[in-house]
Amino acid sequence: MIKLTAKDKEKLEIIYKKALDQYDDYKALNLKLNMARGKPSPEQLDISTDLITALNKADIDSCSSDYRNYGMIDGIPEAKELFAPMLEVSTKEIIIGGNSSLNMMYDIIIKALIKGVPGVNIPWISSGKVKFLCPSPGYDRHFAICENLGIEMIPIEMTQFGPDMDTVERLTANDESIKGIWCVPKYSNPEGITYSDEVVDRLASMKTKAEDFRIFWDNAYAVHHLSDKKDDLKNVLKACKEAGNPDRVFIFASTSKITFPGAGIAMLASSEDNINGIKKLMSVQTIGPDKLNELRHVKYFNSYENILLHMKKHASILKPKFDLVINILQEQLGDMEIAWWSKPNGGYFISLNTLDGCAKEVVKKAEEAGLTLTNAGATFPYGKDPKDKNIRIAPSYPSLNELKKAIELLCICVKIVCLKKKLEE
Amino acid sequence: MIKLTAKDKEKLEIIYKKALDQYDDYKALNLKLNMARGKPSPEQLDISTDLITALNKADIDSCSSDYRNYGMIDGIPEAKELFAPMLEVSTKEIIIGGNSSLNMMYDIIIKALIKGVPGVNIPWISSGKVKFLCPSPGYDRHFAICENLGIEMIPIEMTQFGPDMDTVERLTANDESIKGIWCVPKYSNPEGITYSDEVVDRLASMKTKAEDFRIFWDNAYAVHHLSDKKDDLKNVLKACKEAGNPDRVFIFASTSKITFPGAGIAMLASSEDNINGIKKLMSVQTIGPDKLNELRHVKYFNSYENILLHMKKHASILKPKFDLVINILQEQLGDMEIAWWSKPNGGYFISLNTLDGCAKEVVKKAEEAGLTLTNAGATFPYGKDPKDKNIRIAPSYPSLNELKKAIELLCICVKIVCLKKKLEE
Repeated sequence: MIKLTAKDKEKLEIIYKKALDQYDDYKALNLKLNMARGKPSPEQLDISTDLITALNKADIDSCSSDYRNYGMIDGIPEAKELFAPMLEVSTKEIIIGGNSSLNMMYDIIIKALIKGVPGVNIPWISSGKVKFLCPSPGYDRHFAICENLGIEMIPIEMTQFGPDMDTVERLTANDESIKGIWCVPKYSNPEGITYSDEVVDRLASMKTKAEDFRIFWDNAYAVHHLSDKKDDLKNVLKACKEAGNPDRVFIFASTSKITFPGAGIAMLASSEDNINGIKKLMSVQTIGPDKLNELRHVKYFNSYENILLHMKKHASILKPKFDLVINILQEQLGDMEIAWWSKPNGGYFISLNTLDGCAKEVVKKAEEAGLTLTNAGATFPYGKDPKDKNIRIAPSYPSLNELKKAIELLCICVKIVCLKKKLEE
Repeated sequence: MIKLTAKDKEKLEIIYKKALDQYDDYKALNLKLNMARGKPSPEQLDISTDLITALNKADIDSCSSDYRNYGMIDGIPEAKELFAPMLEVSTKEIIIGGNSSLNMMYDIIIKALIKGVPGVNIPWISSGKVKFLCPSPGYDRHFAICENLGIEMIPIEMTQFGPDMDTVERLTANDESIKGIWCVPKYSNPEGITYSDEVVDRLASMKTKAEDFRIFWDNAYAVHHLSDKKDDLKNVLKACKEAGNPDRVFIFASTSKITFPGAGIAMLASSEDNINGIKKLMSVQTIGPDKLNELRHVKYFNSYENILLHMKKHASILKPKFDLVINILQEQLGDMEIAWWSKPNGGYFISLNTLDGCAKEVVKKAEEAGLTLTNAGATFPYGKDPKDKNIRIAPSYPSLNELKKAIELLCICVKIVCLKKKLEE
């Protein structure tokens, strides 16, 4: 870090003191703001109001089989047709599940641990240690599954193009206990990065010491653009096939942030062989998913094109919130070299990096003034951010007014913590 | 077996030959009847038609929190209140889940294998072999879970009061690897037996060598009476508490055979400590169940009393079918001492026992004439009926007309196979 001149120091000291005063003002407001999770706002949920009443008896009568009854473990054909284009797979390469893609991920990992992955069928646990590569910062719930199931996590640095592939390739080529990698490949959680074509190709084609190494491709934000400026993600299943590793990837998605988080539908896509293997294992576990909720979604959307139009309505609510956050960050912290942030084209998060060693303290300060943020460190395996610098901002839930207050307060906290550090150096 | 007199033999031979002719007549009809599974009929599903449109936007607005969004891992309070009386537990002793109670059973067993049961927290798999007691005949999907997960099954004979408790007590007292027992305690699958109070008490109070032994109490037919002649089942959770083993039982149920098999809701009841432990483990797996489908059920039923009234409609459709089956069995096989059957007060099945060594052949004969039955042996662990005598009859799905044909054909097949055996002895 460049040494501050006396003049610079004086300037920063004034800002720091002002921030201390502002912090007290905010504290006096007794705010109660929560930005911990990437939850859609009530206004966003209202977009899908008609889904609630989209289904009637006549719709059910017009179906080829009785979706009210047992069966169809992999979901109804109409839902496969609706969502296959979203994941760029064929209808034979997709399973439509319950309301939670996280549950499908957990399930696949459990099955791999106990029964092995389809085609290999050697339980991961039979080989002792199981390790996962965890591009970080990443999604805390992915990491929580690993931690809960005793899977050792190896953090991988994120670049602007995706995970640091040199490290990923080196590790997977040499360690047979590395069985998987977590990826949020589009508008990544929390950085909003979309993997480059090269990263996708390298993941698809790299040599892995473990024959049963699998990519867990959580494409949670496939159609979640903030505007017409969209990121493109290379088709990973196609890339895997072309690289001669057709069974390497499990792709997950859901309508949680398309329709309702609490009543959407989730899906899993993979090679036909993987899908058939998973279906066989699932048949022990359940007799089928909620087919009426699948049909409800089919009747509501009718076509993939309508899903894309529907997402524009979400964007029209989300874009002003993301703009507001980025504008305030720029205004308040833009020239100070104490914080840097992502400017994503989609997804649900803005990733804020402070000076090293400051994130925990910033989050604590915010909490004390009534603003709950995602725990600092939560975006890293075991909750440990090695540089203690990453803060995840989730702008979707609060109103614009609340969000303005929250981000202004956050900026004040960043100034208090980071400027103090900078001035002391 | 009493030796047949020459006169008896002659009489049976006439019946046998007539049955052979009748069988050919049926075969010529090219029937295609399926009675393999306990599926509700379309007429039964029509009872719940209004459930499909039971929910509207105003219902959602009137709730204390936004059920469209993430959260509430254990279900909505209104659904707990609605279903707690059905399982005779408090609202703190119940979790409302997705659409499949089988999935909840599978999940609890997976968690026990990998993480241990709440309160003990020692993974079942860490102790090597895991065994389950399997009262048989029983539910094939229970046995399939065990077989799939490598859990060794020990068949336990069923008496008219429930499992043979002398054997159950002896085994659990002496073998630490016995971790569970499967029970369908009311209108059991397939025999329609309801466990006696004594059996419930002995299960609740017996000494178990394994501290983490658990009862898997699949109360699938809690309110599924065929008429006002109802069986009573003792409250097992209460019995466990009184016996000083409050955490011994996991109770499962669903609305699969109350509303829609493909779009119902499932539930798990247990001690508060167990529920809290399970909730903690579930929080890694999912962010919550489909709360709108829970609310839909709440709005549709409104009260537990209405569920009971609703079940009378099912009974009015099912009772004539059960009566028809039992009447034809009596008429055709009543005096021949070649077959015996259950006469349940509820549930979904009639259990037919033939002479030893005949069940497989009867099912095969039926299949060849166009009637698909549950595989003979399916009601026993590993699909092996040691006496090859049990056939599960599922009368719910076919129409009365089809059912009449199916059971007449079944009786002909029983005569052909069993009389042949009897005459040859």
